[in-house]
Amino acid sequence: MEGYGRFLALLVSALLVGFLSVVFSLVWVFHYREGLSWDGGSGEFNWHPVLAVTGFIFIQGIAIIVYRLPWTWKCSKLLMKFIHAGLNTIAMILAIVSMVAVFDYHNARNIPNVYSLHSWIGLTAVIFYSLQLFLGFAVFLLPFAPVPLRAALMPIHVYSGLTIFAAVIGAALMGITEKLLFSLSNPDYSALPPEATFVNCLGILLVIFGALILWMASRSQWKRPPEDNAKILQSIGETPEGTEEESTMTDGSNADKSDLRINSEAARKQNLKFDEAGQRSTM
Amino acid sequence: MEGYGRFLALLVSALLVGFLSVVFSLVWVFHYREGLSWDGGSGEFNWHPVLAVTGFIFIQGIAIIVYRLPWTWKCSKLLMKFIHAGLNTIAMILAIVSMVAVFDYHNARNIPNVYSLHSWIGLTAVIFYSLQLFLGFAVFLLPFAPVPLRAALMPIHVYSGLTIFAAVIGAALMGITEKLLFSLSNPDYSALPPEATFVNCLGILLVIFGALILWMASRSQWKRPPEDNAKILQSIGETPEGTEEESTMTDGSNADKSDLRINSEAARKQNLKFDEAGQRSTM
Repeated sequence: MEGYGRFLALLVSALLVGFLSVVFSLVWVFHYREGLSWDGGSGEFNWHPVLAVTGFIFIQGIAIIVYRLPWTWKCSKLLMKFIHAGLNTIAMILAIVSMVAVFDYHNARNIPNVYSLHSWIGLTAVIFYSLQLFLGFAVFLLPFAPVPLRAALMPIHVYSGLTIFAAVIGAALMGITEKLLFSLSNPDYSALPPEATFVNCLGILLVIFGALILWMASRSQWKRPPEDNAKILQSIGETPEGTEEESTMTDGSNADKSDLRINSEAARKQNLKFDEAGQRSTM
Repeated sequence: MEGYGRFLALLVSALLVGFLSVVFSLVWVFHYREGLSWDGGSGEFNWHPVLAVTGFIFIQGIAIIVYRLPWTWKCSKLLMKFIHAGLNTIAMILAIVSMVAVFDYHNARNIPNVYSLHSWIGLTAVIFYSLQLFLGFAVFLLPFAPVPLRAALMPIHVYSGLTIFAAVIGAALMGITEKLLFSLSNPDYSALPPEATFVNCLGILLVIFGALILWMASRSQWKRPPEDNAKILQSIGETPEGTEEESTMTDGSNADKSDLRINSEAARKQNLKFDEAGQRSTM
């Protein structure tokens, strides 16, 4: 792997910042707020930030870069797809439970639901995330989708995954803003009491986590190599160089498995493209 | 250009959504708020959302995709760099003026400055944006930076540009949340009066604008072709195919102009990479 040390440093930083975000969300609700419970009170609301940060941000972030971990490159692609889908399923469940906690809390206190921009964007993100998971499962995990369809949908899957991830972080930042404005009084938010500084720092951690994940996910040299084609090509004396130049943000369009020509340069590139699009269906 | 019709449809949508966002910010301050003035009152504060949306989001977004417009591909690269830098300079000035308006307003009313997460991330974004502009100017516009340095910094320039753009939209969403919570009472935000619905829609427009710009900026097939190298290569019978496979999110590392070998496949790729990194220094 090119730049292995740099990758490792970024991975450790991302894990550290992500883990710290989860710890910060727990300290927030246990030290500054009413802890956790499930009784329609503030303790139930508090599941919202904790599960959103843990599931919808930290676990989603890990799910995005799981194909990039070089230690997994000897595992089968199918296994990695299951891990990617599994992590995203866990994230989705936690996101939904975090939402239920807020609805329950609001209903118990007769507070209206889904009026703020935070809730509009957060709810939209949950819906798109579930759709993304369902479509990803149907197209890339189940064996029924034809290769051209996979190839056409792959760049959209990657792009929408990263965009939803960014939108979720945006929603979290709005949520922090709302909660601090609602809950701090004497001294209020503008006096910057310790809780405000602490939770602002949580917001900054979330932005740094997002930036690290997006950097790692968009470096082409850290993509999982398409090992099967690489082996075929090496056996006929070709090097699989083409793959390293394609980024995750690149279109992998119009691939076709049926015509496996490996004699010409153009055909070699097309086969690698098929491998990118058809077999390497996600990050 | 591959997929010209799709590009055009997306460009028109982005322009429409961006323009609509500016109109929404103006309707917000003129129809629902106190209009615009520069006297330390609410009218001065109102410059903040208007200039942030117009400059820091709309104009920045256009600056990001300006290299992608196929009609500009016959213009010199240097001219396009000036336009890219010029638009970003205008965006930076408007962002700074929008910030001054808030400081002025806060100081006139003895409201503390820079306490909220919105202000922390917004201010950080302005600082990073100015730094990005300064470094971009020094490395990619002035003729002094060696090609390997340009090549090494190009992917960072692209990545940080897009990340700052996303962070600015995140800051705007927090700003909207803050302002609606502060200014709406009887009925307040949770009753969703017309102003709240209208400004929530402005937030949604900003997210859609950001998503459109990020899609257009990350499609490799819509990059400006490196015409000089293409001409050289065509004159010796080679086709410049390598360029289309490199995305804007791809590392363009380790290029070196001094050794211009164009006989071998590897050297041809390296030369194209140099062109990407050295001459095509921005989006």
